[in-house]
Amino acid sequence: MSETLTVVSSHKSFGGWLKRYRHKSSTLGCDMTFAIYLPPKTARGEQVPALYWLSGLSCTDENFSQKAGAQRLAAELGIALVIPDTSPRGKDVPGDPDGAWDFGHGAGFYLNATREPWSRHYRMHDYVVHELPALVEKTFPVNGKRGISGHSMGGHGALVCALRNPGRYLSVSAFAPISNPMNCPWGEKAFSRYLGPDRATWREWDACALIAGATEKLPLLVDQGDADDFLASQLLPEALERAAAAAGHPLTLRRQPGYDHGYYFVSSFIDDHLRHHAQALLG
Amino acid sequence: MSETLTVVSSHKSFGGWLKRYRHKSSTLGCDMTFAIYLPPKTARGEQVPALYWLSGLSCTDENFSQKAGAQRLAAELGIALVIPDTSPRGKDVPGDPDGAWDFGHGAGFYLNATREPWSRHYRMHDYVVHELPALVEKTFPVNGKRGISGHSMGGHGALVCALRNPGRYLSVSAFAPISNPMNCPWGEKAFSRYLGPDRATWREWDACALIAGATEKLPLLVDQGDADDFLASQLLPEALERAAAAAGHPLTLRRQPGYDHGYYFVSSFIDDHLRHHAQALLG
Repeated sequence: MSETLTVVSSHKSFGGWLKRYRHKSSTLGCDMTFAIYLPPKTARGEQVPALYWLSGLSCTDENFSQKAGAQRLAAELGIALVIPDTSPRGKDVPGDPDGAWDFGHGAGFYLNATREPWSRHYRMHDYVVHELPALVEKTFPVNGKRGISGHSMGGHGALVCALRNPGRYLSVSAFAPISNPMNCPWGEKAFSRYLGPDRATWREWDACALIAGATEKLPLLVDQGDADDFLASQLLPEALERAAAAAGHPLTLRRQPGYDHGYYFVSSFIDDHLRHHAQALLG
Repeated sequence: MSETLTVVSSHKSFGGWLKRYRHKSSTLGCDMTFAIYLPPKTARGEQVPALYWLSGLSCTDENFSQKAGAQRLAAELGIALVIPDTSPRGKDVPGDPDGAWDFGHGAGFYLNATREPWSRHYRMHDYVVHELPALVEKTFPVNGKRGISGHSMGGHGALVCALRNPGRYLSVSAFAPISNPMNCPWGEKAFSRYLGPDRATWREWDACALIAGATEKLPLLVDQGDADDFLASQLLPEALERAAAAAGHPLTLRRQPGYDHGYYFVSSFIDDHLRHHAQALLG
């Protein structure tokens, strides 16, 4: 792993610092940008737990940093926020052949691709679960306690990262996740390209399939707006509800009346999620 | 005044609604977009006071709506937020001849221009102080109690709107305002074009000049980051400090260590400003 971090920007925020870094990722084979919010107590020499946030289709780290309003309570609670990009990027990284926004750049789906030409770079699962935490924990005052959350494609990512890696996260939550990607158009497009046509291999990257065999039963907190344009076609929270019920997996799925798919929805409930994670990370 | 409002977008946020509207402004002679955040209690039939927010150079209403995180506490306190654009716009509205971002479109400086070709459209003072509040108070459940705040060029705007119009606002505050535009490059460029070369006319639009003759002494709350790149060249808070001291005008100027000019600074202190306004608007 390259250990060179280049500071892209640095902003004081709620007494702490939001910093963006660029580094060469060996997992992804390209330069990557991520952001980290360090709460005020890190400046006093304290180590803090970290909440990883995975963003949705077409996002970068900046959507969450700028729009979610998470820094206020993260500063108060003493939790770092680690915010990766949503895919490998750069001119050497192949993107969607038609330039679509739901595949390729900005749409890595937090899996490890197995099919050419995607398998060389599209390994966001290993980047988010292994390379980035190792780098963060070596570089910043974090104590190794990890939570994970995300929005839409990143909600799928958060659920799948936690379900695939027992013991690695103390807490997990999601906003409007793509709950059952095997059975929705966004997921079918991505999985058929990244993983190939054999749908049996897709089950390793689908929260509803993984939940059946999960050995660790971290309680899932999921918020879903009922005015979300993607609810019925892409997000399928009822599939997650059925899978959790069948497996006896603890799930709190809150349907939020009137809320849509965007960051005005995320910001309205981010404090509840931070408190959910704080219980496990600080309790 | 045209009374037709077209809904541009509508997002539920913290139990209330953030709505953007488009309307034909008779003051500005063009179509304008503005946003309003209606806190939850308005849905229960209550009327609430309104805080007007004026944004900075190159901004639209969206910077504040998306990045300041003001809706959380505005919802809790029961204050509406009214967020106009920063200038007249459109293909019929002349902009900077060189396409610069610090004059013309996005840079109306909240004054009434007196020189051709600007005087036809650039009348943001009258729009913000008269036309928009009249429209808002006729259309939405607001009770006519008004506060005003803003950032950078909008901080200048907030101070000047309050100082020029005693009785019209119950409270005023600013983030990193252009405090003394007569004596900084941004202000000199704008005033010399919008108002012409006679600097005596500029005094009507300069907070430091206006404060000397202010008949109403609303307490001013101003936050200023000490790592702001524009501090020494453009913002000149010490001129405001001198003018307020000379006039016996109550000013709380807080220099915030490490903070820069952006919305990470604004969001860190917006709650303090909302509480400052709430004291006057709800007290």
